[in-house]
This record gives sequence, C-alpha cells and structure tokens, in this order.
Amino acid sequence: MFAVRLDQGQVSVVRRPRPSRPSGHALLRLRLGGICNTDLELQRGYYGFRGTPGHEFVADVVEADRLTGRRVVGEINLPCGVCDWCRRGLGRHCPTRTVLGIVRHPGAFQEFFTLPEANLHPIPDTLPDEEAVFTEPVAAACEILDQVKFPKGAAVAVLGDGKLGLLIAQVLAAHGLDVHQFGRHRDKLRIAAAAGVNTAVARRLPRAAFDYAVDATGSSDGLREAAAMVRPRGTLILKSTVHGAVPIDMAPVIVNELTLVGSRCGRFGPALRLLRSGKLRLREMISARFPLQAAPEAFAEAARQGVLKVLLKPL
Amino acid sequence: MFAVRLDQGQVSVVRRPRPSRPSGHALLRLRLGGICNTDLELQRGYYGFRGTPGHEFVADVVEADRLTGRRVVGEINLPCGVCDWCRRGLGRHCPTRTVLGIVRHPGAFQEFFTLPEANLHPIPDTLPDEEAVFTEPVAAACEILDQVKFPKGAAVAVLGDGKLGLLIAQVLAAHGLDVHQFGRHRDKLRIAAAAGVNTAVARRLPRAAFDYAVDATGSSDGLREAAAMVRPRGTLILKSTVHGAVPIDMAPVIVNELTLVGSRCGRFGPALRLLRSGKLRLREMISARFPLQAAPEAFAEAARQGVLKVLLKPL
Repeated sequence: MFAVRLDQGQVSVVRRPRPSRPSGHALLRLRLGGICNTDLELQRGYYGFRGTPGHEFVADVVEADRLTGRRVVGEINLPCGVCDWCRRGLGRHCPTRTVLGIVRHPGAFQEFFTLPEANLHPIPDTLPDEEAVFTEPVAAACEILDQVKFPKGAAVAVLGDGKLGLLIAQVLAAHGLDVHQFGRHRDKLRIAAAAGVNTAVARRLPRAAFDYAVDATGSSDGLREAAAMVRPRGTLILKSTVHGAVPIDMAPVIVNELTLVGSRCGRFGPALRLLRSGKLRLREMISARFPLQAAPEAFAEAARQGVLKVLLKPL
Repeated sequence: MFAVRLDQGQVSVVRRPRPSRPSGHALLRLRLGGICNTDLELQRGYYGFRGTPGHEFVADVVEADRLTGRRVVGEINLPCGVCDWCRRGLGRHCPTRTVLGIVRHPGAFQEFFTLPEANLHPIPDTLPDEEAVFTEPVAAACEILDQVKFPKGAAVAVLGDGKLGLLIAQVLAAHGLDVHQFGRHRDKLRIAAAAGVNTAVARRLPRAAFDYAVDATGSSDGLREAAAMVRPRGTLILKSTVHGAVPIDMAPVIVNELTLVGSRCGRFGPALRLLRSGKLRLREMISARFPLQAAPEAFAEAARQGVLKVLLKPL
C-alpha cells in the first residue's frame, strides 16, 4: 500500500505492507483525509515527528469486532483506558496517550491504518465524506462550548480567519451566540458571513469591547491582540497552539483580571450532531483535492497563504 | 509637611504644603504605611511614575463629611462612579480610575493625603495598626476567592514565598483549603506553616499534581513553573505582575487546557473580616520599621533579598 511519510521537513509517499490489526483495534481503509495546520507544524519539525501524519479522516472499517463495513470518523487520542483521566471520560488528557498521526501512533494519510474500535463513530449515509472529514476540527471548535458557559446570545469575538477560526465562528454562531469575526481575508470571511457570523476585515481591532474572545490567529501576536479586545474580567479562549517561547506581556491579563482558557481537542458526538444539522458551511472551505499519492504537492498547496482545507484521497 | 517622592529611581523626602480636601474626599493623616513590591517597581520606573507613592496605609481622618476622627484603611482605586463598571460594583476596573500612589493620585507616604470618603473603612479598636496596614494586600489575596470557586477543602499549590505569596497561602488556608506552598526561604515559609499551610523548600517542584495553583513568585519564570504543577483542565491563578514582554511558551496551557486567571486588587470587606478573625500571622511578616523621614533607607531595605514587609511611620 501507499503511505505518506514526513521526515525532517520532507514529505514523501512510500510503499509499505498493510498494517496488522492489534486487539481491540479496527483496520481502516482511508476514504478521505484533511490536512490540518498541525500536519504542517509536524512537517516543520514540532514534536520531533517522523512517520505518517494525518488525523482528519473518513474511512471504511475493513476488519473489526463490531463495525466491519461501516463508514466512520474517529477520535484521535488513544488513551490508556484505566487512569483517572480515562475513567472521568477525559482520555484526551490521559498522560500516556498516543495520538493518531501526531504522537507515537501512525496517522491516517495511508491507504490502511488502525485505531481502537472504541474511537470510531459510524456516520450516517446522508453525511458526505467531504463534510464528515471536518468532524475532528469541528469537535475542536465545539470544545469551547464544553469549557466556557456563555450567557445566552452573548457577543463573542473570534480573531483569525484561518480554517479553525472559520469553524469556531460558525460553531459558536450555530450555538446562538452573537459572533464577530475579525480577519484579513475578505474571501475567507465571506464563508463565515454566509453562516450568520458578523465579519470584518480588521485594520484596527476594537479595544475592550467584548466579554468573550477567541484567539484563532495561529500567531504569536494573537494573544496580545485578542486580550486587548476583551473587557476587564472577560474570558479569552486560546485556540492558537504557538510552539516555543514567544515574548508575551501578561501584565494586561493580570491588571484586567482576564480569564484565559486553553482549548484543544473536543468530543465527536456534539460535532457530528452539528454536522448533521447542516448549519455549517464546510464545502466552501475546501480549497483543493489531491490524490494521496500526490501528498508532497498537497502539503505544499496547504502551506500556501490564503489556502483553506486541502483534501487527500487515495486513487 | 513631609512627603516621600519618587523621581527617576531616586527616593527622597520633601517638604510641601498640606493638600487641600476636594469635595467628597477625606483629609487623612498617615499613621502607618507599608512598602509593597509595586512601590519598588514604581521606583524602577514602571508606569513612568513620578510623585508620592504609597497605597498600603492606616490613617486618622482629620476632616471629612462623616468619618472625622475615625481610624481607617482605604480602597486604593478611585473610580468615576458612574460608568458600567462602577455601577456593577467593579470600580476597581473603571477605565478612567486613578489609583492611590500608583496612577495619577498622590499616595499615602506623606503626613497628609486625601481619598474619597467612600473608599474608607473604619477599623475596630481591637485591630492594631501593624495588622490593619496589611488590609490592602490581604484584600488582593482574598480576590482569588471572589474569582475562583474552589471545591471545599481542595488542594491548592502556592508558588513563591514573598509577601504576597505568604498572605495568599494564609488566606486560602483560613478559607479551609489544603494549601501547599513552595518557596526558597525556610524562614519565610515558617510563617505560613504556623498558619496551617503545608510548606516545602522547593528544589524540584511536583509536576501535574494540583488542580489549582497560584503563581506568586513575582518572576517571569513563575507562570511556566506553576503551569507545570497543574493537572490538565486545572486552574492557575496569576498574581505576579511581571512588566514587559517575557518569553512564555503557551503550548502547555493549550495542550493541557489550563485556565489562567489574572488577579489583582480585592474588596476590603472580606479582608477586614479575616483580619479580625486573628487567623493570619501578620506581625511575623514585618521585617523593619522606619520613620517616614527615612524613606530612602526604608526603600533600600525593602528591596533587599529576603526582607518582607517594611513599615513607614511619621515621626
């Protein structure tokens, strides 16, 4: 079979044997994969990653104990299942977890791969692959609603109009919040606007104007910029994983008594319910489709400024 | 009268006329002042400060509409009184506020000074000056309890054993929490230990061991060190105002979905109730007493490593 491989910044496609299925795991055949900013960061060397990336996928279950033949998406954290975190339903924080295509578990950008059957969610026939492939990032956006209790209809600023920013804005709007998204790309913001988000190409950002804001800029300046938009005692949700130490002035956070909430992966259940509702504009977020075998070109395209979701599909 | 003056790092004592009393203000005669780390930062040039510092005080009301003759402590923020913040009882965040001895209002380190009468809290005869002078920093410690709802008896780590760290640890312990304080000075930690705090001279800090932690190190490393002590989904309260941009790696905050809570000034009511309870060990925190007229020596002493509270008393 073909598998994508990252090694010291190089993307290649290699041939290797089909993986064997560990006990409790399902053998999956990739239908569609999505390239995420995390994949691009792995390419740049974060986590010292070397191997097959990919954690946004739709697949067919080839062989499993229960789900053989089903079309599925899958949660990406592989928890130990027995620690305190796992018992509390928070395996996403299990300290010995591996993570599909990120931490010590081969990813989905190959024709066949494995995941614990417990991680899989069968998807309804009515949900097309090109929407279902967004389940994982939509879950990450939904995670905000698990962490922060917003007053009904509250105004929320979303800073950044990349892939995650667009999903977050749409998810919060679908939740009935009054979302104001600030970005730099009129064409990207148009997608969120069509989903009921107030959008603005931001030259000057409003200051101390929101009780809630989300930093989804993916940039080291995002925290400072988003913090300046939040009123005293307000809440800033951090969705930009910026790696390494960057200069941050925390004094405004303390003086204004802000609450900062780090936010990462989310549950798939709420995300799938939202995908089925049809409230999200996902197809417009697809910038390009590549064969799995053209992964090097797909990664290069995904890294280009202004490009949103790039999909990989085995030939 | 004598007044302490800070100007470009220099502490001096100058003679100047007694201030006049603006409408709604009380004229106060200083009984006792306490030097805070913020005063030392003002000396180092933060906020471009030039003038009379001092915001921890006990004073007699010389002239006022209601409180003439009373012994008082006073809230340090002078809010506008009419904006949304003020109407919500959060004048501490009023955007046009001035702050006693910090922002555009002359401080308490002079024989006579003024504050709005509404800021003043008469203190009971049973509370000596040398305890009442801690009201403002105890209120800042109590602020944590206004911001974070701790489960009954929860374990909380306090990192840092400076003045504020010792007060925070004692306040949280008096609130019935299971407080574990980590510092570098055995003699300082002994004070908190006498108030029922578990203390340890920290060479290696425990990792991912607490659901709640407070950074009171006053150092730019504090956030990183305290964040590493907190479990995933845990809460880190930021009490160290470190000025200027310092390198911070926010990735662990996001990956572990921590909540960071900036915390500053607090209400005097709860602080005074706690001071009256006698549960806090405050006298042991007094390192030295100086006449107001010896402020330059007092500031030098307060800045020495290992020194806790330094008091100023008019001759």
